[in-house]
Amino acid sequence: MNPSPTPEKIMQLGMAFWGSKTLLSAVELEVFTELARQPLNADTLQTRLGLHPRSARDFFDALVALGILERDNGLYKNTPETDLFLDKAKTSYIGGFLEMANARLYRFWGSLTEGLKTGLPQNEAKEGGDFFGTLYADPIKLKSFLQSMTGLSMGASKAIAQQFPWDQHQTFFDIGSAQGGLVVEVAMAHPHIKGGGFDLPVTGPIFEEYIRSFGLNDRLRFLPGDFFNDPLPQAEVLSMGHILHDWNLEEKKLLIAKAYDALPKGGALIIFESLIDDERQTNAFGLLMSLNMLIELPGGFDYTGADCTAWLKEAGFRETRVEHLVGPDSMVIGIK
Amino acid sequence: MNPSPTPEKIMQLGMAFWGSKTLLSAVELEVFTELARQPLNADTLQTRLGLHPRSARDFFDALVALGILERDNGLYKNTPETDLFLDKAKTSYIGGFLEMANARLYRFWGSLTEGLKTGLPQNEAKEGGDFFGTLYADPIKLKSFLQSMTGLSMGASKAIAQQFPWDQHQTFFDIGSAQGGLVVEVAMAHPHIKGGGFDLPVTGPIFEEYIRSFGLNDRLRFLPGDFFNDPLPQAEVLSMGHILHDWNLEEKKLLIAKAYDALPKGGALIIFESLIDDERQTNAFGLLMSLNMLIELPGGFDYTGADCTAWLKEAGFRETRVEHLVGPDSMVIGIK
Repeated sequence: MNPSPTPEKIMQLGMAFWGSKTLLSAVELEVFTELARQPLNADTLQTRLGLHPRSARDFFDALVALGILERDNGLYKNTPETDLFLDKAKTSYIGGFLEMANARLYRFWGSLTEGLKTGLPQNEAKEGGDFFGTLYADPIKLKSFLQSMTGLSMGASKAIAQQFPWDQHQTFFDIGSAQGGLVVEVAMAHPHIKGGGFDLPVTGPIFEEYIRSFGLNDRLRFLPGDFFNDPLPQAEVLSMGHILHDWNLEEKKLLIAKAYDALPKGGALIIFESLIDDERQTNAFGLLMSLNMLIELPGGFDYTGADCTAWLKEAGFRETRVEHLVGPDSMVIGIK
Repeated sequence: MNPSPTPEKIMQLGMAFWGSKTLLSAVELEVFTELARQPLNADTLQTRLGLHPRSARDFFDALVALGILERDNGLYKNTPETDLFLDKAKTSYIGGFLEMANARLYRFWGSLTEGLKTGLPQNEAKEGGDFFGTLYADPIKLKSFLQSMTGLSMGASKAIAQQFPWDQHQTFFDIGSAQGGLVVEVAMAHPHIKGGGFDLPVTGPIFEEYIRSFGLNDRLRFLPGDFFNDPLPQAEVLSMGHILHDWNLEEKKLLIAKAYDALPKGGALIIFESLIDDERQTNAFGLLMSLNMLIELPGGFDYTGADCTAWLKEAGFRETRVEHLVGPDSMVIGIK
């Protein structure tokens, strides 16, 4: 007996942007940073955040019902997750990506249909703007963006530090290293590892500040460069996290070939992304991330472990494997 | 042992607008109407929908991973739910509300933060536009909107037709009847019931067409009126579905008082909404619907069963009860 179909699941998904935008606004308004200081009642929280009384309580209670705030005896407080990850005063803050999603992506995704019809990006580029250009010109925005990338990849970075056989290698460079989130996790877990990050010169000071804050500047260094126009650093292990999906197929293969050239025999390339499952039917986040590449970039797309494995073999890597990391993230390892 | 917190739930909720907008774009592009005719492979579906090849397959596979399409041997087809509810050729189509959400609400919710700070609507009203004015001036848009309301309330309407003791009553009018979704469900399930719908004159032809399509025009009729400025129809049972939440507290109480006046002793008022749970901590949809009233209207808000019960008692109703219907919807019944 199949129960008769109900529209509930469709309506929930169709209106899921309500809950999503409510969290994004809460991050923008720094609800979680405020409540990390102390639990507050609705009136005090409303005043502190500068909200109009009309809908403040509905807003706070919606956050409770969504499972990202708690309320005890009229006092609102963070959940363990929001206290750790959405309090700006903590280094574990990952809200930067959500701030960016709130300020940019939510709006640009409003033009998804046009993107699907034209195959063209729907972000600042559409009105002649240049997101990365603007970003690289403003050190404060850039730092915030790179921090958000650290947060976004933190789970994957910790898993890579645990799962990869680092004891078999001595040197490691992350290509497109941003703030240095991955190299710090690896260096902290494996005191013998030396290396650093390779990224555009403008990211150097932000990388170096982050590395110093962990006291790792004796083992990790910043190497400035453009991964299309400069040779990649030589190390036993190279990694590219959320890099390949930005580029078209030809560019992806070029970056893999450059990594192959830079590695010694027996060296390893680690590629990690929200890999789409090989059957392309379960990892919704990976597939939606690929649509996000449509919104953001002229040729980027996400891919499966099988796709990436084929590119690695084609580039000459003799051994490959795919391992799940956390949540939607997996890594592909190629051994030269 | 508590497992250490992970950011996964936060990220999933924060980026949930991706999946939501993907479904909304699929409704806009009539993916489900196309596939209801016959299952299609990616290339044919892309051509039929007029999509650019770049991201079409990612789009279709994302819909599969989100559980709203199926794929067998490379052929995409609807799920039982999307076939029944998102095929425009079927009377069970409920996509009108999602079309409206895609064309309007998604964008207006982008200004949620401003709404929370100002307490002011964030829709057409903000630029001097008038959503309802425009709607009432365009018969095709109006019909589509009223259809969407029918779809949105269909589950609740069927539940009310089953749960309420209709055998104890003979006459029934729905106040703010829109297309007539509720009165049709009640009249079909209970052949002794007579009555109809009360709504603004402009909705009359759309109501009457819907009633005739079920052959119910001998028992159901349309009574034109403005529920603030005209007396309500006299009947043993009156209902207001997704009506009270549009208005401020004073207006809500006025409408309840007018219903009380129009009912005979022993008569019943049925109020149904996505009622917020009394503890205000589980029905996220009801709380978010209340934020949607902030986006859409100057004074509307959603409320709990306890709130509504108190208003009914205050208006003189001698007996009240709250019953869950389906999904986020519940009804409050007041007996005069």
